Amino acid sequence: MLAQLIALDWGTTSLRAYKLAAGGVVLEQRSLSSGIMQLPKTPRVINGRECADGFELAFDEACGDWLDAQPDLPVIACGMVGSAQGWREAAYCDTPANVANLGNSLQTVISLRGARVHIVPGVIQRSRLPNVMRGEETQVLGVLQNLPVEAGGDLLIGLPGSHSKWVEVVDGCITHFDTFMTGEVFAVLSEHSILGRTQQQGAAFDGRAFDRGVQVALSADGELGVLSTLFSARTLGLTGELSPTAQADYLSGLMIGHELAALAAAQRRRRNSVHLPSIILIGNAQLCTRYSRALDACGFANVTLAEQATERGLWQLALAAGLIDSSSR
Amino acid sequence: MLAQLIALDWGTTSLRAYKLAAGGVVLEQRSLSSGIMQLPKTPRVINGRECADGFELAFDEACGDWLDAQPDLPVIACGMVGSAQGWREAAYCDTPANVANLGNSLQTVISLRGARVHIVPGVIQRSRLPNVMRGEETQVLGVLQNLPVEAGGDLLIGLPGSHSKWVEVVDGCITHFDTFMTGEVFAVLSEHSILGRTQQQGAAFDGRAFDRGVQVALSADGELGVLSTLFSARTLGLTGELSPTAQADYLSGLMIGHELAALAAAQRRRRNSVHLPSIILIGNAQLCTRYSRALDACGFANVTLAEQATERGLWQLALAAGLIDSSSR
Repeated sequence: MLAQLIALDWGTTSLRAYKLAAGGVVLEQRSLSSGIMQLPKTPRVINGRECADGFELAFDEACGDWLDAQPDLPVIACGMVGSAQGWREAAYCDTPANVANLGNSLQTVISLRGARVHIVPGVIQRSRLPNVMRGEETQVLGVLQNLPVEAGGDLLIGLPGSHSKWVEVVDGCITHFDTFMTGEVFAVLSEHSILGRTQQQGAAFDGRAFDRGVQVALSADGELGVLSTLFSARTLGLTGELSPTAQADYLSGLMIGHELAALAAAQRRRRNSVHLPSIILIGNAQLCTRYSRALDACGFANVTLAEQATERGLWQLALAAGLIDSSSR
Repeated sequence: MLAQLIALDWGTTSLRAYKLAAGGVVLEQRSLSSGIMQLPKTPRVINGRECADGFELAFDEACGDWLDAQPDLPVIACGMVGSAQGWREAAYCDTPANVANLGNSLQTVISLRGARVHIVPGVIQRSRLPNVMRGEETQVLGVLQNLPVEAGGDLLIGLPGSHSKWVEVVDGCITHFDTFMTGEVFAVLSEHSILGRTQQQGAAFDGRAFDRGVQVALSADGELGVLSTLFSARTLGLTGELSPTAQADYLSGLMIGHELAALAAAQRRRRNSVHLPSIILIGNAQLCTRYSRALDACGFANVTLAEQATERGLWQLALAAGLIDSSSR
């Protein structure tokens, strides 16, 4: 099959490249560590010119040979590559945002080898406390493509990660989302706080310790909030009730539990109903497993996992932008 | 006036030494950076012997000359010096704890120069999520000494710090306390997370930014919890609504606001009343100023600051332990 599109998922710490054929079929994919915060630094000759620009170097490494073979392949990219610290800033689109208005707002940068790289903007929600995403909007669109439209109203799309996002969609539009910094806070506490000092790496995921943390967050003890319950990861260790190898997974469950307890309460308030929406999770499989367990404990009954969300979303956006012939749909 | 007692407040990052006369009057005081995590390392001759033990070196530096002048002065110490990582572990006393049972539970270590150093135990609350303190119990006792007994029931003693403590006292006993890791979490987020990257040091405390953070925590937006509202320190910066120099104080207000909102709700539940207790704050003056502002915003009407709590508490404990003659009271 002939390639039709190069699609890049270019975040802070990684760059994934996909060569896609008609219908968005993945012909080949690559994973590089050249996120925008860790770009290559060794100069190289690109298109006959010595080049030291990290974005050009990473781009060439990711898909230079694909473009050598098919120089006219369109290129689309999403993620932090479009941030103020990225290759070219693509200003946020406001909510409500859908595939049409995101596809019409691509920002273009022309690479040293002459390829036009189309960068997907992020989405901003201008509420009293503004909220932003970059990359997740593309994943959400990739998931929506496969859903019946009427599913939206009772659906919440979750994207666990350093900054997890919970996205509401109505009629194919991203209408509202919330962010939780749970992943990053967990990482900095484990690495730099007193809680990390007594943690020992366990052999495998300790589901019991994780579930125990979730239950604490959901219990009456959780009402003091995460800034208080965090300390139990230390004190249960001091009293011998939590082994050093269980502490990291306990802390993870505790923090994800606080996130999801607050999310469930907010959803009930927003919907003015005790009923909780169905959930579709997108992301790293291990992290989604943790979130699935905790969602279940929080009363979210219907949780499914989505796959290939990013490449599907990029394909849809390229179609909407007219980068590829709609007969390839 | 003749000295009667050497009192040491020996924590993780600092060591304060007091020379006290009858009635607990402070004759002299010193502040060293020799906390138990940053003990001196350069060997020195103490009492005719070469010594490389960090505790001995710090102790000698803090009060060796006082003991040279009065070798029989009793010594009492509180804080992390009595932890498992300290000079000698002093096992926690259970709640309810008062001056009598803490004074009866001192742990003794004999220094190289022959001084008996009496170490105050911490306090443990064996609830479902255990809670511990070391050093704060002494400060609380120092404050109680000056209070009418009947004040206890409607009083909460707050000790802001890396791990802030909120202590309930009944009839001179520490009966219940909660811990919030607000200070340490603020520090690691400012130093190691994405939130720190856009913070710039302001010239002075930005009270407006701080109060704004407190209000966000208390608002409907705060219901998603601190793991979510944290992200607003970044997004308000992205949209130009919060300047880089205001971000640290905004974040501080936000986090202290979440702590105190949870505390107020818990106090109302525990007392089964909308009425909030009076507050006495003990600690660093700048931090107490922040907490006073935020307590006021949270509806705590009666807030006062205590001084000299540690040295007073150590004096009371030395009296209770019989280290000093009760005629010196």
